[in-house]
Amino acid sequence: MPGATLYTALPSPMPLHRGGEISAGVIAYETWGTLNAARDNAILIVTGMSPSAHAASGPLDPTPGWWEPMIGRDRSFDTERYFIVCVNSLGSCKGSTGPASAHPDDGLPYRLRFPSISIEDVADGAAAVAYALGIERLRAVVGPSMGGMTAQAMALRHRQLVPNLIVMSCAARSSAFAIALRSLQRQIVRADPGYANGQYAHAIDVATGMGLARKLGVATYRSPQEWRERFGRERQKQERSDDPFASEFQIESYLDAHARRWAGGFDPLSYLYLSRAMDWFDLTDYGDSVEAACRQMAVEHALVIGVATDILFPVEQQEELAEALAAAGADVDFQSLPSIQGHDAFLVDIPRFAPVISRFLDRL
Amino acid sequence: MPGATLYTALPSPMPLHRGGEISAGVIAYETWGTLNAARDNAILIVTGMSPSAHAASGPLDPTPGWWEPMIGRDRSFDTERYFIVCVNSLGSCKGSTGPASAHPDDGLPYRLRFPSISIEDVADGAAAVAYALGIERLRAVVGPSMGGMTAQAMALRHRQLVPNLIVMSCAARSSAFAIALRSLQRQIVRADPGYANGQYAHAIDVATGMGLARKLGVATYRSPQEWRERFGRERQKQERSDDPFASEFQIESYLDAHARRWAGGFDPLSYLYLSRAMDWFDLTDYGDSVEAACRQMAVEHALVIGVATDILFPVEQQEELAEALAAAGADVDFQSLPSIQGHDAFLVDIPRFAPVISRFLDRL
Repeated sequence: MPGATLYTALPSPMPLHRGGEISAGVIAYETWGTLNAARDNAILIVTGMSPSAHAASGPLDPTPGWWEPMIGRDRSFDTERYFIVCVNSLGSCKGSTGPASAHPDDGLPYRLRFPSISIEDVADGAAAVAYALGIERLRAVVGPSMGGMTAQAMALRHRQLVPNLIVMSCAARSSAFAIALRSLQRQIVRADPGYANGQYAHAIDVATGMGLARKLGVATYRSPQEWRERFGRERQKQERSDDPFASEFQIESYLDAHARRWAGGFDPLSYLYLSRAMDWFDLTDYGDSVEAACRQMAVEHALVIGVATDILFPVEQQEELAEALAAAGADVDFQSLPSIQGHDAFLVDIPRFAPVISRFLDRL
Repeated sequence: MPGATLYTALPSPMPLHRGGEISAGVIAYETWGTLNAARDNAILIVTGMSPSAHAASGPLDPTPGWWEPMIGRDRSFDTERYFIVCVNSLGSCKGSTGPASAHPDDGLPYRLRFPSISIEDVADGAAAVAYALGIERLRAVVGPSMGGMTAQAMALRHRQLVPNLIVMSCAARSSAFAIALRSLQRQIVRADPGYANGQYAHAIDVATGMGLARKLGVATYRSPQEWRERFGRERQKQERSDDPFASEFQIESYLDAHARRWAGGFDPLSYLYLSRAMDWFDLTDYGDSVEAACRQMAVEHALVIGVATDILFPVEQQEELAEALAAAGADVDFQSLPSIQGHDAFLVDIPRFAPVISRFLDRL
């Protein structure tokens, strides 16, 4: 079965936001639906930190994608009406050029030779895909979590491309609390002896550190309310173990399972680079205030969706972004959803997210 | 300068709540003020997971204690009126018998030979100090954080000793979220190669893992609101570093400083044992409900103090305990304080905590 992944070559060399450049870089993406003759029905999805471009199944890759219930006939991203493009972030390890890619000079993985990646560079990479497809004006850019930052950076740096913006579970910049958690995740990865100062041979060598960092991620991507309802203080079946501190509670085995699925499947340095990029991104780098930055965009309609139980990007931060976009002249729909599933609700609470998105897209 | 620490010998052997026993165990404690002739003016403080018995300075140890502003003449725990006793938890490494203590058989540290410690055992150890001082009825037991669980267990297991109860920033049991965070902290410690499956030579050998676990603790002991106000997105002065992921933001250096102060200063296995004990404690082990458990206490007056920004023990959980105590017949004062300092507010937001405690004690 051939994969559905397509590639766009980046300008070579491509200069980066914080200095340095990438040569012979590519961006991986997938598409669903058909670009119309006017080339004005394209919706571009930029992702959170870890997903690939495989947001949904398709004829060339029937495995379910990470946003499967959102993309397809009669779904919010209706493939009968729209041409949907999902882009893998520059710096990731899911097809786009990143620290695990081969360095053009010697064919060995870049590792720490990879230059610093900013959200601005991720945005430029996503825009390059749109331009390569002959699209000058997207119907909308959609960004959940880190993708919300990428979408904002696209709206700033590629004004004509982004008349309409959907930002989900994100903010104009990370809070001290979010930075603290991500900084700790990065330290946990680097404390794993298998990390070997970035000179690990294979991602799986850093499985312990990546697994622990993932658990901390999962702990902050969902909400205490959800876990109380799902797990409470229920015990799991005890397996015999020599470890006196083995998992006992169901919540612990849930986290164990998440760590196992993740470890080895994501490049540790891609994780470190993109995690740091999220800390760095700050819309007020583009003006004295969030509003001043929004005035430099050309956004006509915006949908900002927050979730009341989001620990990482509290809904107040999302409201701040919505208000700034409105003050800058955009027609803004701000939705604070009462989901109990926290930051990751956009992945799982489809019944709440889907109608809000459909309604917004219908109005464009 | 001689230390102010006193010791009470535990019954030997002392049977433990989950089986096993401790021989020749001791509990470390300190006192301030004078026990009156009626022996009815004693207030016993049981601590959070890590503090020693040195809650305040005194003639024999003038260094400031961990609750210095609360203890002394004209302070909430007024040493002119009350005889204040602070107990180091059984299982800790601050004077009481714990995994770092010498095993009576061979004089070597117990390490993993130490039996499983429950909050119930910590409570029995604290009660042993009161009995050894000739106290049959305390004026009150005061427990912040883990100490709040110890105080509840004392009220259940030593009914006559505990007519009045102050529980701060605690609950009748840990939530799935709190268990998840502590489970992760324990795994981080155990993932440190220096932990050596519990056979480390010195606490400092586990400095990396303990430091990272501490950072996660600090991240959850305070509140995002406080950090936004204190640190925002301010950068620290950059020191030259070979580490491409070195700390950049002030919040990161704040956490670094916490980790440095902690690492080597607390025994890793004491941490693992007491952390697990907090997961295990569940007041409903003593009845079908929190209320049923409270009916087995003989508490006349209770003060339950929660903090609106507590992530670890959300104020709803504290309200649940307050309502159960009231339904069981106690005269209950429930205070939800608007502190922004989160779980650890009892240590730092003295202006909010002190008057509430003084008022409660005055009424007894």
